[in-house]
Amino acid sequence: MSEAWTKDIQLLLSQTKVAFLSTQGTLGPESSMAPFAIFEGKALLHLSQLAKHSKNIQQTPNIGLVVCTPETKGTSPLALPRISFTGRIEKVSPTNLVKAKSCYLAAIPDALLLFDFTDFTLYQLCINEVYWVGGFGSARKVPIETWLELSKTHRS
Amino acid sequence: MSEAWTKDIQLLLSQTKVAFLSTQGTLGPESSMAPFAIFEGKALLHLSQLAKHSKNIQQTPNIGLVVCTPETKGTSPLALPRISFTGRIEKVSPTNLVKAKSCYLAAIPDALLLFDFTDFTLYQLCINEVYWVGGFGSARKVPIETWLELSKTHRS
Repeated sequence: MSEAWTKDIQLLLSQTKVAFLSTQGTLGPESSMAPFAIFEGKALLHLSQLAKHSKNIQQTPNIGLVVCTPETKGTSPLALPRISFTGRIEKVSPTNLVKAKSCYLAAIPDALLLFDFTDFTLYQLCINEVYWVGGFGSARKVPIETWLELSKTHRS
Repeated sequence: MSEAWTKDIQLLLSQTKVAFLSTQGTLGPESSMAPFAIFEGKALLHLSQLAKHSKNIQQTPNIGLVVCTPETKGTSPLALPRISFTGRIEKVSPTNLVKAKSCYLAAIPDALLLFDFTDFTLYQLCINEVYWVGGFGSARKVPIETWLELSKTHRS
């Protein structure tokens, strides 16, 4: 766990608040954005039932997610470090909801008011594949055990 | 075409160089990143055949794409303006290649060297649906005619 790239993943996850979803629409995959947090190795997403991605995941819970270093002037768009996941999304269970909500709000405090909206639901993505691109020509599959280990501490 | 939101779309497209793809993998949709440019109403993507998204689009050319305002400190991650597309991806035809390549490189000059790599191909996404989220609670479907009109001038 002392490899430079595991620290780079932790840095990315601690500095970035939005993720890009890939959900199954009726005519093909669809892309959308949502803020995220990491909780016990899973990605938390707080989604409105009014949004298309929520309708899509009700039909097909297998989704993709990518978190990318935000663009800045002077950084090549070819080389932005990013991490992508695939997995199955499900509602956070009532027994985990208090802890998961607290974790999500620590990352996304602006979302507090949305928890009063009845159309929003807190989901967790149970991750089965992780892929890291550290820059141009620098890519690797991340073993799930490595992901679980590094995700424990990323917001510490 | 004088509505504020059409100008906001043009601003986003002129200031943002990366897009997030949604492609069909074997177990479900997958998310990835690629730089993009807009050319005659289509999104140009220069993809390596070695990347998973290229293998996916060979099987299923229907994809999703989202372009999002980069995160900055002080901006809520809930409210970042973004535009999403669905459509069908195909290789740029040989007759359009010089013009499309020139347009792509005007947006992504760092990619010049990649055109010497034999595993890279310039694709175009023929867009059939456009959806704009201008901020929290501000979303609309963009008629394709409006998209074609505003995309003409966005890099002027």
